[in-house]
Amino acid sequence: MRRADFPNPVKELVAELKRLPGIGPRSAERMAVWLLQNPKADPAALAHSLTHAAERIVPCNICGFFATAESCGLCDDSTRDAHQLCVVEQATDVLPIERSGSFRGRYHCLGGKLSPLDRVSPEDLRIPSLLRRIDDGPDDVEIILALGADVEGEATANYLADLLRGKPVRLTRIAQGLPAGGGLEHADELTLLRAMQGRRGI
Amino acid sequence: MRRADFPNPVKELVAELKRLPGIGPRSAERMAVWLLQNPKADPAALAHSLTHAAERIVPCNICGFFATAESCGLCDDSTRDAHQLCVVEQATDVLPIERSGSFRGRYHCLGGKLSPLDRVSPEDLRIPSLLRRIDDGPDDVEIILALGADVEGEATANYLADLLRGKPVRLTRIAQGLPAGGGLEHADELTLLRAMQGRRGI
Repeated sequence: MRRADFPNPVKELVAELKRLPGIGPRSAERMAVWLLQNPKADPAALAHSLTHAAERIVPCNICGFFATAESCGLCDDSTRDAHQLCVVEQATDVLPIERSGSFRGRYHCLGGKLSPLDRVSPEDLRIPSLLRRIDDGPDDVEIILALGADVEGEATANYLADLLRGKPVRLTRIAQGLPAGGGLEHADELTLLRAMQGRRGI
Repeated sequence: MRRADFPNPVKELVAELKRLPGIGPRSAERMAVWLLQNPKADPAALAHSLTHAAERIVPCNICGFFATAESCGLCDDSTRDAHQLCVVEQATDVLPIERSGSFRGRYHCLGGKLSPLDRVSPEDLRIPSLLRRIDDGPDDVEIILALGADVEGEATANYLADLLRGKPVRLTRIAQGLPAGGGLEHADELTLLRAMQGRRGI
């Protein structure tokens, strides 16, 4: 007797779903079965939107955000403040900042962060185009480094700070400290150190 | 200034991914971005396996498990014991039992469980074909109800027990009790009640 298993097309689908970030073998199985069995599922629509998005979406030539043309909706929006340039690691970091409603300027997505361990060096990042944008842009630009508070984010921020020294720009970095709603008892020592160092008059 | 958002093809992909079971808006976004940006991602392969599986997979005519032909690999396997028939709610319940290595017989997938609230009544389940299989099958068959221990599972088990009374079959039900590795302190009262009721001599 052979131990029963899914037919091959199901196994192949499970294997593809399992490759998605954050999806383990059990979730992949549950998703595959739902896609194939649930009357509300529409695997053809998912397949179509995958193909369609993969064909249509390219990185914006200017800032690296998601675009369907040479430049993205952000760069095409002339009402955005050209005197503020927010540098983020990934294109996906743009929307959280947008949703916070705290920024009305322009963005530059590096496409990663410096990480010798993962063999990400400056030439792998969108740094030359950042320098070009600064050189071609208006004076009095504030460059806001909105990079992660991890080791690689720190290294990237330091590297960019060195690189931009001498340029006629104002360089800032977003604050580190207690997360909103987070009590002191949940904060680790480094977060508390940063929160203390970043204290401001009230 | 418009607040930036993903281009439409990305939004459509996120919307489709969000429909998957257990996938919230943030996971859907993370998956979409990974699919479109990560060099290791292969959205075309996922789209293909979705389409392929949706086209190829049908429910087995006999037992309701996943099949690529009229009958499934389980029903076609003549080495399986025809004197044991395990009744499960969903086709997805088959593999966990197979993996447990505890069963070498045949299966019957009802395709759901009785649930008046969700308007699932007996005629929505694969019950007529179960009765036919029993009538056409050998005598001395053990029908093992491997249904959930929730209210609907209980109701379905009771309904089937009533229906099969008088048939020349032996009707059993899988045990309820402490889950493996679970201490008493994590068990709810009903589980402990069932565990106590189901106690056996050692």
